[in-house]
Amino acid sequence: MALLEHINDPSQIRDFDNDQLRQLCEELREYIIACCAENPGHIGASLGAVEIAVAIHKVFDTPNDKVVWDVGHQAYAHKILTGRREAFKQNRKYHGISGFPRRDESPYDAFGTGHSSTSISAALGMAVAAQLEGRKEHVIAVIGDGALTGGLAFEGINNAGSLNADLLVILNDNQIAIDQNTGALHNYLLRVTTDARYNRIKKNIWDRLGAGTVRKWVQRVVKSTKRNLVKQGGDTFSLFDALGFRYFGPVDGNDIATMTYMLSRLKDIPGPKLLHVITTKGKGYAPAEEDQTIWHAPGTFDVETGRRTGKKRDVAKFQDVFGTTLLELARTDERIVGITPAMASGCSMTIMQEALPDRVFDVGIAEQHAVTFSAGLAAEGMLPFCNIYSSFSQRAYDNVIHDVALQHLKVILCLDRSGLVGEDGATHHGAFDMAAFRPVPNLTLCAPLNESELRDLMYSATQPAYGATVIRYPRGYGHGAPWRDQPFHYIEPGTAVKLHEGSGVALLSIGAIGMNGAEAVARASREKGIEVLHYDMRFLKPIDTSALQDACSRCRHIVTLEDGALSGGLYSAVAEFIAAGGYSCRLTGIGLPDHFVEQGTPAELYAECGMDADSVFQVLLK
Amino acid sequence: MALLEHINDPSQIRDFDNDQLRQLCEELREYIIACCAENPGHIGASLGAVEIAVAIHKVFDTPNDKVVWDVGHQAYAHKILTGRREAFKQNRKYHGISGFPRRDESPYDAFGTGHSSTSISAALGMAVAAQLEGRKEHVIAVIGDGALTGGLAFEGINNAGSLNADLLVILNDNQIAIDQNTGALHNYLLRVTTDARYNRIKKNIWDRLGAGTVRKWVQRVVKSTKRNLVKQGGDTFSLFDALGFRYFGPVDGNDIATMTYMLSRLKDIPGPKLLHVITTKGKGYAPAEEDQTIWHAPGTFDVETGRRTGKKRDVAKFQDVFGTTLLELARTDERIVGITPAMASGCSMTIMQEALPDRVFDVGIAEQHAVTFSAGLAAEGMLPFCNIYSSFSQRAYDNVIHDVALQHLKVILCLDRSGLVGEDGATHHGAFDMAAFRPVPNLTLCAPLNESELRDLMYSATQPAYGATVIRYPRGYGHGAPWRDQPFHYIEPGTAVKLHEGSGVALLSIGAIGMNGAEAVARASREKGIEVLHYDMRFLKPIDTSALQDACSRCRHIVTLEDGALSGGLYSAVAEFIAAGGYSCRLTGIGLPDHFVEQGTPAELYAECGMDADSVFQVLLK
Repeated sequence: MALLEHINDPSQIRDFDNDQLRQLCEELREYIIACCAENPGHIGASLGAVEIAVAIHKVFDTPNDKVVWDVGHQAYAHKILTGRREAFKQNRKYHGISGFPRRDESPYDAFGTGHSSTSISAALGMAVAAQLEGRKEHVIAVIGDGALTGGLAFEGINNAGSLNADLLVILNDNQIAIDQNTGALHNYLLRVTTDARYNRIKKNIWDRLGAGTVRKWVQRVVKSTKRNLVKQGGDTFSLFDALGFRYFGPVDGNDIATMTYMLSRLKDIPGPKLLHVITTKGKGYAPAEEDQTIWHAPGTFDVETGRRTGKKRDVAKFQDVFGTTLLELARTDERIVGITPAMASGCSMTIMQEALPDRVFDVGIAEQHAVTFSAGLAAEGMLPFCNIYSSFSQRAYDNVIHDVALQHLKVILCLDRSGLVGEDGATHHGAFDMAAFRPVPNLTLCAPLNESELRDLMYSATQPAYGATVIRYPRGYGHGAPWRDQPFHYIEPGTAVKLHEGSGVALLSIGAIGMNGAEAVARASREKGIEVLHYDMRFLKPIDTSALQDACSRCRHIVTLEDGALSGGLYSAVAEFIAAGGYSCRLTGIGLPDHFVEQGTPAELYAECGMDADSVFQVLLK
Repeated sequence: MALLEHINDPSQIRDFDNDQLRQLCEELREYIIACCAENPGHIGASLGAVEIAVAIHKVFDTPNDKVVWDVGHQAYAHKILTGRREAFKQNRKYHGISGFPRRDESPYDAFGTGHSSTSISAALGMAVAAQLEGRKEHVIAVIGDGALTGGLAFEGINNAGSLNADLLVILNDNQIAIDQNTGALHNYLLRVTTDARYNRIKKNIWDRLGAGTVRKWVQRVVKSTKRNLVKQGGDTFSLFDALGFRYFGPVDGNDIATMTYMLSRLKDIPGPKLLHVITTKGKGYAPAEEDQTIWHAPGTFDVETGRRTGKKRDVAKFQDVFGTTLLELARTDERIVGITPAMASGCSMTIMQEALPDRVFDVGIAEQHAVTFSAGLAAEGMLPFCNIYSSFSQRAYDNVIHDVALQHLKVILCLDRSGLVGEDGATHHGAFDMAAFRPVPNLTLCAPLNESELRDLMYSATQPAYGATVIRYPRGYGHGAPWRDQPFHYIEPGTAVKLHEGSGVALLSIGAIGMNGAEAVARASREKGIEVLHYDMRFLKPIDTSALQDACSRCRHIVTLEDGALSGGLYSAVAEFIAAGGYSCRLTGIGLPDHFVEQGTPAELYAECGMDADSVFQVLLK
């Protein structure tokens, strides 16, 4: 850390030579690895992007020049270089710094990210603003090849390529998002890269040939061979040139000398430019280079051995239940297919993918397409299970309304990571799905209390009484409810289940957060002799009005509990029932507040939001 | 109509020769023009796509082969050919057929549309389903060059280009959506087309040259000229080839012989294919060809003269108020910029565009980008007014949450065409915006009662007390409230205004639908002597709790009135206030029901939904 320990501001590296820059990159890698070994983070992407970050801060006048990191997983070196070296030890921790760039954290974070594919649009906005305001500044978007498949990135390119703003897009091509990338764009980039290597070899042979007949013959052969290959380079044709960008590359994005050379060359070329750089995810740490999917975010590990040291718990994760159950259902029903936009390993659809590869479609980062593609499959008689993380499903809101619900097409939308997700923080909490989908006609909305209910809801949703269905469930471990190899139980749509008999006070919960409620209810009985009527509602829509009526007619105080925004979800549904029915009971809602919740462990965040068992207990006594 | 009047099923045209097909196209055009002259519709796009529709039904075995019409504006010939010739007279009418394809209307409508850019994703899903089910069928997506700029279309292409499904995309390139298309893709298509013409000329010269030295010289010149041009054609490189499609074209899409020839040639080529056809919007009707923007949907007209016969009313449209006010504000505040995704003339941002062209950005059909681009502008100190139709803003839900609200970036999002829009029907009603945006932190949500309130809210939103703000207002005529050249009045965020004093019964309305409420309130006073307390809430968020308290403490019956889905909007907000506060009043909500409302005149639809003045009056008496 001979260099790094003195750097508190990127202006300090502007006169470094290549040797110093190379050493700085090495030190950054060591520091990122050491920190992430103890405090888990997104190590793979950030190790791959060290030279990109260093080269940008070496060549450009940040923070006057602006850099937008797409997604932001890859921005650790950027954070460490921009005054957050010590703070990085608290990366993703409660009250620590965010794992993503944030405008309120540093002037070097020009635009906050977390969701993918936003960088080109945001950077274009900034470049146009600079132009309108007559400021001379450079704006750089750094985007991965995974994020580039998101339609928003294309919309940004399409607009940028026709406005003449000074914008540099650095395409950080590591051929992987969390899982291996798929799609035509991926294939294209692979061809470009292969072709570039081929060109380098060609050039070597060429130089040795000298002028003359053989050279001409080779020229002819090469030309015919390349007919269907794609040309690249600044002045020949590429996909990006077609879209109004000047394309440069591909170059080695893990070579700091190349990177600083290219950026200083490109710096003053006007208009939209794209620099295609090839990097290795996990670069410089052998275990991370070898298994890039696991090392996307590996948890804690031993630096020397690369052994992952995170404790595994005995209980299963909701993701295991989803993946295992999906395969089980698919084996007995040929109509079932699995669709996910680049979340196959995250949601454990990989279990089905390995067993029935022809019936699983990882469509890349493309939430909108995932849903409309599912609707197309359903229109022709298939039964698609489409899995998207709740916060990313916000991208597919229109597709669920317009392509699924409006047409009564039976798509089973599984929203993984609903509610508070923990360390990823504000951008990733699945807060809005219940409120956003409740007003949409023709949808069934449900959330399981535990592992077996998830399993039974997935099974039930395949049955004829269910149409288009949304099943939301949280990230991480369940509660140890037995589920594996259990028979399926059919759950009638719109039926709640009574977990505890009581009167006076009623707790109406939906989803796995109901376990905190059950604990509070048990404690009220045990410690205070208060018997709380507790319903696990299971369905937000159709809602079980007989359960509501039971609660509202017998209790003076109704408490709702949900792991989602209060406005619009279960709290609103129950409020409507009470107010429309003229019941005299008082309502208290427990759920996510009307501000964005930051990062921390789920336990810390639930306590903060008054959603832990103790807080629920206190409310039940009121 | 010698041919057309006998066609009830497209199988009847399968043995037609080119002369018959040509005549059929002519008859179709005449019929479309005659019907639309009396019963307004989207005539321009449909006139341009007559040959596409006829050629598809001639060559393919519909409805076994599937065709998905992107957006659906261009599908009139398709509808008329598929058993709906007589029904077409009731196009877009209450209880008539829809202006868009609908699965529940005809087996020939393989997938319902209305919003743009869905066709490739849906068609791919259908093609993959056919493959999995072992059915041999053709699937065709017809998409305009405007719709192709939507990110969803790119996501579909990216996925289709790597799956090997049999999919034919017909790119109907007329260089215009509603307004002139913009963007890099547009420029690319224009170059391809120009280049193709150039190639035809070149070939003519070539054939005349014969072999020899001159020919070689020409070859060399041509090659160097073309260096930066884009090659096209089946076996040379194009943008679409790069993305895994076999590209064919461009060909004349208004020439029926060419179209049937090309489609029958492409029919049995496996894998993803794209046929680029050039058409003229409004083809065959001179006035429509001449002013394509106005003739996108011209209203009624006189066929002979092309004179538009729709009655203009004396009062202004909300769109005029928006457009005029935006320009007025922009003239006094240099930070103000206008952004719209291809709705510049629809929302009247053209008024500012003509006066201040450098400060208006029509980004093409790209709702997501429009919002994130606005966020980028705001991050650098600009004050963007981003105008999107309410139902299309569902596409930008995540961008509003993730890029605007989370970052406290001051974007003023104007949602035109909120509430029931009338003849466009279910896909276009702006039903969900209030419910979807209410749970999102940091947003101010408001809706003006009338023209002057829209004007004042737009002005107020530029003031410091307002952060990111959503202003929703309806399509069409206002109520004649004076607004032009009036001074601006500042409205404090979260303040309601009392329109009528009363007690016992309270009406809480939000938005322009409140005018129906005011009429009902006046009638209750006049006819029944009942004085209803009426608040124009203006803000859904922050909501005026002192108005709510006033109403709930003095009235036994509270009625809410809003032009949006009941669940989640004003009705829910008031229900929460009542239930949480333990008020004993009874609540009745008037708003959009929990099913999709179909097409009709706004008056017919408001009556159907119980939202007209008479229905409100009846509820107030209860």
